[in-house]
Amino acid sequence: MSDSFREDGALALDWVASYLERVREFPVLSQVEPGALRAALPAAPPDEPESFSNVVSDLDSIILPGITHWQSPRFFAYFATTGSEPGVLAELLIAGLNQVGILWRTSPALQELEEVTVDWLRQLVGLPDEFRGHIEDTASTGVLAATIVARARQPDRRVLVCSEHAHSVADKAARLLDLELRKVPTDEEFRLRPDLLDADDACAVIATVGTTGMTAVDPVPEVAERCAAAGTWLHVDAAYAGAAAVCPELRHHFAGWELADSVGMNPHKWLGVPMDCSVLWTRRQDEFRSAFSLVPEFLRSPDDAVNLSEVSIPLGRRFRALKLWAVLRCYGRSGLQGRIREHLRLAGLFEGWVRDEAGWEVTAPRHFSLVCFRRDGSDEDNERLLERVNDSGEVFLSHTRFDDRYMLRLAVGNFRTTEDDVRLAWDVLRREAASL
Amino acid sequence: MSDSFREDGALALDWVASYLERVREFPVLSQVEPGALRAALPAAPPDEPESFSNVVSDLDSIILPGITHWQSPRFFAYFATTGSEPGVLAELLIAGLNQVGILWRTSPALQELEEVTVDWLRQLVGLPDEFRGHIEDTASTGVLAATIVARARQPDRRVLVCSEHAHSVADKAARLLDLELRKVPTDEEFRLRPDLLDADDACAVIATVGTTGMTAVDPVPEVAERCAAAGTWLHVDAAYAGAAAVCPELRHHFAGWELADSVGMNPHKWLGVPMDCSVLWTRRQDEFRSAFSLVPEFLRSPDDAVNLSEVSIPLGRRFRALKLWAVLRCYGRSGLQGRIREHLRLAGLFEGWVRDEAGWEVTAPRHFSLVCFRRDGSDEDNERLLERVNDSGEVFLSHTRFDDRYMLRLAVGNFRTTEDDVRLAWDVLRREAASL
Repeated sequence: MSDSFREDGALALDWVASYLERVREFPVLSQVEPGALRAALPAAPPDEPESFSNVVSDLDSIILPGITHWQSPRFFAYFATTGSEPGVLAELLIAGLNQVGILWRTSPALQELEEVTVDWLRQLVGLPDEFRGHIEDTASTGVLAATIVARARQPDRRVLVCSEHAHSVADKAARLLDLELRKVPTDEEFRLRPDLLDADDACAVIATVGTTGMTAVDPVPEVAERCAAAGTWLHVDAAYAGAAAVCPELRHHFAGWELADSVGMNPHKWLGVPMDCSVLWTRRQDEFRSAFSLVPEFLRSPDDAVNLSEVSIPLGRRFRALKLWAVLRCYGRSGLQGRIREHLRLAGLFEGWVRDEAGWEVTAPRHFSLVCFRRDGSDEDNERLLERVNDSGEVFLSHTRFDDRYMLRLAVGNFRTTEDDVRLAWDVLRREAASL
Repeated sequence: MSDSFREDGALALDWVASYLERVREFPVLSQVEPGALRAALPAAPPDEPESFSNVVSDLDSIILPGITHWQSPRFFAYFATTGSEPGVLAELLIAGLNQVGILWRTSPALQELEEVTVDWLRQLVGLPDEFRGHIEDTASTGVLAATIVARARQPDRRVLVCSEHAHSVADKAARLLDLELRKVPTDEEFRLRPDLLDADDACAVIATVGTTGMTAVDPVPEVAERCAAAGTWLHVDAAYAGAAAVCPELRHHFAGWELADSVGMNPHKWLGVPMDCSVLWTRRQDEFRSAFSLVPEFLRSPDDAVNLSEVSIPLGRRFRALKLWAVLRCYGRSGLQGRIREHLRLAGLFEGWVRDEAGWEVTAPRHFSLVCFRRDGSDEDNERLLERVNDSGEVFLSHTRFDDRYMLRLAVGNFRTTEDDVRLAWDVLRREAASL
């Protein structure tokens, strides 16, 4: 097997390089019928070994048709992401080293590089240095973990609070931990209304900077003040928007997040790190450790290293820090700022086109790289429009719905997206709208 | 950036190939002092982009000294693992495609390949076809998820039961879900004693096939019978040993696991899949969906696909199925059987050497590829011996302790391990013991 590693590796590398070179050409949303891939695969595992080149050739024939191209510069759905080149290659290094981080000694490099890179990112987004961080798989796990800590410190408070626009991970965390979820109404800009926030019986409040639907920004300073008065844990969910804090001119959106007990953001969303890499910072690492560590307090000495398994759910972790390190170095502060600014410029352009065109409407304030909009007409018309746009395969957009009002969403976030790609999205939208 | 992808990729590939070629030469357990890597890295992130080749050259100078070589054939600690060649290269493909599995449409290939490969693995280990599976990051998350489902169906049963040799993930799951953990005493072979098992007030019982300390095998048929009588969820944790069920002659150890409600095993342990890949099967996927899905029952039609995010904690998932697929194909049933049989042979050899040597003792029955043993003398002597062996860097072993008795553990599990490597471990042990 290992004799052919270099040869097989060259094959895999060439496949990925050529995939990235032609990624713009594929239908962005997979056009297969449910079950097609299942039907194309043998129902039983092979008895005898096959060559790795068989796997690679099946990528083209079997796998690619079932791929929705998150790497495409014409992917504008949900939040667009990028597995950047240094991030992709770092995954090869990570797998080659195959570290399993449990205790410090099982991989000193993993433990320390995770501490360092997460701290680099903290500096990049401007959080104070009292915050300590670690990497989770996704923000779902991060919100769950923060809620576990909050509940552990106040076990008789069985309420979790968030705005009606918070991500469904809040619903999931409450359900899994058997808490009541209380949703606070929002104002005309979809922001949590702090005057309606009652945190007194809550173990935790989740405020969001950049909600999933419309990237609304909750008034974190006011929420933090109420949480402090009520002794309630505040988690700030900046899973998507957090990346924007790399740009000083966008920091005002994040005012007050330094008052949070924990803050989450996903480098796998808007910072070029391949899936998965979600960072969770906290000012209260000691409370994370109390909640998660199985080492009793009295057995610890003050200078013990905090093993990362002691502040999170899984015992073992991948060497995810290596890809965060590669991406932060290969882009640098200026490179990341450049991409985020360009995405805001492109989203601004698109927003302008929508505003200037009769029969179209921008439906939510734009703070980052997401534009919410719709065409005059019924929700069903807009729904049909989106379906036709996505069925064309030329671009992929998604939607959201609030107060039963349907909106289209165009999220710029892929590092390879150009102005032409955004213009294409607008052309396809108008073309399909005209033909409806 | 993308212009240099092929060039940077060749660099990364060459680095991994050469790492794997010389992996036997490194001190297996990292010899650095705590903080060494942190001190070698800049305290602040770079402002300007660096080349990827800088990252690669820092691997040698900064990262490698802090690596504990899980890929080394002389790694015999905990449970030895392998990031096999096809698995490593599959991670490159996974990152290149950068899929985010949320709903079926976000990656039909991810969803269906995960269903198919997990079903292939089910067939390989001989579980009945009523079991449906999905991939989690680790067995910690799998046990937590199974316990969440068990608690959701019987919310007034606030007890989780396992043997005193169950993995600490049971302690963690109970803690995180606010359940009482009841540990059942074990017999002379470290097996849960079913006659002492009271499951009546428990939401779930965890039985283990291949405990972490000594690979004991709980009497699953008797445990299952008691669980059925009490209406209690049974989770079988076969995180390490489950791979052995690929060999029909070892299936007797797994008798009764087909009666479990859920079963977990880790292809990232003994099946050559790089970290992380843990499979969770269940006969009650509907109950997983009830516990985890945010889509209310009345909104579902019977033929809806089960989105994988509806049966697990995170909303988004990596395309881990691709590496499982690559490994199952490139080894095939016969290749995996061959490696597991060879590991059992090597462990048997080592066990024989220990038995035949005066002053040494085998301390637990050997069922799989783990040998528990010690040298005559005090626990402190054995502890000192292990420290010297690991400090030599030639091999890396770990230990366990039961009833305050200290044992050394040699776990064979790396695909690259040869008889010479195992013999080296024995030589180093005897050499260090003689010099103490």
